[in-house]
Amino acid sequence: MSVRVTVWNENVHEREDPAVAERYPDGIHGTIASSLEADGYVVETATLQEPEHGLSESVLDETDVLVWWSHCANDEVSDDVATRVVDAVHGGTGFVPLHSGKNSKPFTQLMGTTCNIKYRHGGETERVWVVDPGHPIANGLDEYFEIPATEMYGEPYDIPEPDRTVFVSWFEGGEVFRSGVCYRRGRGRIFAFRPGHEEYPIFYQDEVQRVISNAVAWAAPNEGATVNWGNVESVESLDE
Amino acid sequence: MSVRVTVWNENVHEREDPAVAERYPDGIHGTIASSLEADGYVVETATLQEPEHGLSESVLDETDVLVWWSHCANDEVSDDVATRVVDAVHGGTGFVPLHSGKNSKPFTQLMGTTCNIKYRHGGETERVWVVDPGHPIANGLDEYFEIPATEMYGEPYDIPEPDRTVFVSWFEGGEVFRSGVCYRRGRGRIFAFRPGHEEYPIFYQDEVQRVISNAVAWAAPNEGATVNWGNVESVESLDE
Amino acid sequence: MSVRVTVWNENVHEREDPAVAERYPDGIHGTIASSLEADGYVVETATLQEPEHGLSESVLDETDVLVWWSHCANDEVSDDVATRVVDAVHGGTGFVPLHSGKNSKPFTQLMGTTCNIKYRHGGETERVWVVDPGHPIANGLDEYFEIPATEMYGEPYDIPEPDRTVFVSWFEGGEVFRSGVCYRRGRGRIFAFRPGHEEYPIFYQDEVQRVISNAVAWAAPNEGATVNWGNVESVESLDE
Amino acid sequence: MSVRVTVWNENVHEREDPAVAERYPDGIHGTIASSLEADGYVVETATLQEPEHGLSESVLDETDVLVWWSHCANDEVSDDVATRVVDAVHGGTGFVPLHSGKNSKPFTQLMGTTCNIKYRHGGETERVWVVDPGHPIANGLDEYFEIPATEMYGEPYDIPEPDRTVFVSWFEGGEVFRSGVCYRRGRGRIFAFRPGHEEYPIFYQDEVQRVISNAVAWAAPNEGATVNWGNVESVESLDE
Repeated sequence: MSVRVTVWNENVHEREDPAVAERYPDGIHGTIASSLEADGYVVETATLQEPEHGLSESVLDETDVLVWWSHCANDEVSDDVATRVVDAVHGGTGFVPLHSGKNSKPFTQLMGTTCNIKYRHGGETERVWVVDPGHPIANGLDEYFEIPATEMYGEPYDIPEPDRTVFVSWFEGGEVFRSGVCYRRGRGRIFAFRPGHEEYPIFYQDEVQRVISNAVAWAAPNEGATVNWGNVESVESLDE
Repeated sequence: MSVRVTVWNENVHEREDPAVAERYPDGIHGTIASSLEADGYVVETATLQEPEHGLSESVLDETDVLVWWSHCANDEVSDDVATRVVDAVHGGTGFVPLHSGKNSKPFTQLMGTTCNIKYRHGGETERVWVVDPGHPIANGLDEYFEIPATEMYGEPYDIPEPDRTVFVSWFEGGEVFRSGVCYRRGRGRIFAFRPGHEEYPIFYQDEVQRVISNAVAWAAPNEGATVNWGNVESVESLDE
Repeated sequence: MSVRVTVWNENVHEREDPAVAERYPDGIHGTIASSLEADGYVVETATLQEPEHGLSESVLDETDVLVWWSHCANDEVSDDVATRVVDAVHGGTGFVPLHSGKNSKPFTQLMGTTCNIKYRHGGETERVWVVDPGHPIANGLDEYFEIPATEMYGEPYDIPEPDRTVFVSWFEGGEVFRSGVCYRRGRGRIFAFRPGHEEYPIFYQDEVQRVISNAVAWAAPNEGATVNWGNVESVESLDE
Repeated sequence: MSVRVTVWNENVHEREDPAVAERYPDGIHGTIASSLEADGYVVETATLQEPEHGLSESVLDETDVLVWWSHCANDEVSDDVATRVVDAVHGGTGFVPLHSGKNSKPFTQLMGTTCNIKYRHGGETERVWVVDPGHPIANGLDEYFEIPATEMYGEPYDIPEPDRTVFVSWFEGGEVFRSGVCYRRGRGRIFAFRPGHEEYPIFYQDEVQRVISNAVAWAAPNEGATVNWGNVESVESLDE
């Protein structure tokens, strides 16, 4: 049964900046969605401007993995929708925040930290090294791939110690960054992936598309075990 | 230099339930504070009923480790104070939630999960096993200690995979529970300790006092390294 | 493509103890193999008594996941074969030690610890609680399952802090144990599962068979990324 | 009570290579020992050439933390002494392997992995970034420090996912490396620190000395809890 993906985008730069609109005529969400459809996923898109940001209960109920791009409008996401996304992740929905999606309400709420970084605009080279070559999110990659021009993110990245660190980036300007990190919260798998600044055609790059596709496969929910929370009777007899 | 501890208590049961008031005439906070003072810590107390719940900026600025007991009034803690505590932990303040402090706003916000459990009242036996005998929070303990009568907490405990699990409890009624778990969020160390129901004199028990004292020592902040976040110049020359 | 499993058994109790032989007429390996075949895996078996213990290079090359039962003959496994198994795990072969397989040379070498425990014979009840209900190894389980009579294993279990703890057991005699723990070493996934003493028909139990089957699916290797180790040329120009 | 440190060095380059002998006239161990003594530790040294490599039972019994430098002679360490060191770490002795100490028998046996890397000689710049500024091993550091000329180590570094990653290095030639990683095995704390090639005066550098000193303080043993392993009586009554 196919994994159902919702690609969410704040979709602001594409509407306000002609250069971004030209680069991503279908929006960053459209480019990512096309790439995932080509890999056989069932893909929908949703954006900030739609009612409930396109993330109604029914949309989330039919989403196995939520891919999330955001940047300048993280604060415009309503608290209700952010909470709904967090609840969905707790229930098993995979969550793949891209680039500044690390500053989104759902991601920071799931992490419990500031997710602060250092950054720099300027279009320098990034070399993304695979530090966990056995991880399924690295499937099919060489030992590194390069992004010819990008915004820099630098350490310290204020996140909880990751369950697994898959990628560490080298930047031309002298910094390093944990560019691909894995977590679980409740039943949901989370993979935060650094690349993807809107000023560059990064989401057309083969390796970036492959990582996102691998991450969706990895983050898809599984059945798991049943759970009973709350007030319970004892299993063993307690009469004495 | 002595570690400065603030023991916070919602202080509701002690004021509303005569049996609890008789058991803890100085409040649960008072009992814990006395025990920590005897170990050489500099201790203050604070309660829900005080202005800003007794946790003003200046109080938190002078707190190295915040010990937190709460149960029925978790929702009455203001969002502002909860955020202030979370920010303090990110900055390095140690945080030791006891018993239902696991449901407090600061702890759940730091974890990013529901922290759900199963539970049962009835006064059964709990045997707290040390599963990490090399951990400093286990200093001076035997391989287990027993709480003769307590409320039960049972798995699954909906928390992120702990950095370290120090204690796992066995319950007479047939359940198990990860009763002592360690995390870091930002610069702050967190230790959530299960025992401590208000219906029993648990905070007078030697082993419980010792664990809390050990946890305070473990959670005390250290200097660490300096950090620069935000927009930065490159270290390497990027002129081309 | 089907996952290829090799079920290895020291196969000593079955040959020396008539009660065990009657309980497991095809050997513990035979019982486990039948159960896995019924789930669609391609299964072979191997035992201590075969040349190279049935674990030649070519057998390991064609093994995706190695299930391992051992108890009284852990020391009789040759160092060469143990090293071969460790190397295979580093290269991606899944490894599922059962019961006293925790004391096997490959497992202790992969862990780097003593793997010591406490234990007791006597046929008491074990209740295996799912503490990580979102984990794929818990797929299809209720919140716990019981083993009516078994040998006890008790904490502290001297292992590295697990990547994930899936099961924690409650024992009638008063102990607890982390009965299902996950690790990765190199490219290989490892799941150590406690139940399975030879004196009881535990490997005929539905839940036990299901856990082993889930563990095999979870531990199967994936493609991953390419790796280059050793002396390398620089990526960036270093001429100056 | 002062922490007792033993600084172990294979001491081969210093005896065979005049340039190294001139750089480290008291041996690398002597330079490190002087620096640690200046910080108030009680320090002894030991080398490969001494009987039992200077690591007799009685020496290890009186060692709180073992700092270890090795490179070309890792295979010349006897299996007996390697096992003795591993046992000491299990019992609580801190272990701080420096540079190619990552290939030493004790470290690889404690990790259970190959500890493979890529490397390059040539004297390029390394910038060691603090990625965990709240860690005590980072006490007193700026956000990074530079080593002007060194051997490169590059990812993937085949180690278990670290308990904490404190440092990540950027190399002029384009690689990255997890240069400071923390583990626990049994009661013992382990910190593997990358810098320190014999061809450069790295162990005279302030930041490197500070990291080693911090690591010794962090790795010093604590009391912990008592442990009973082996065959035990039940805590609860099992008569029926």
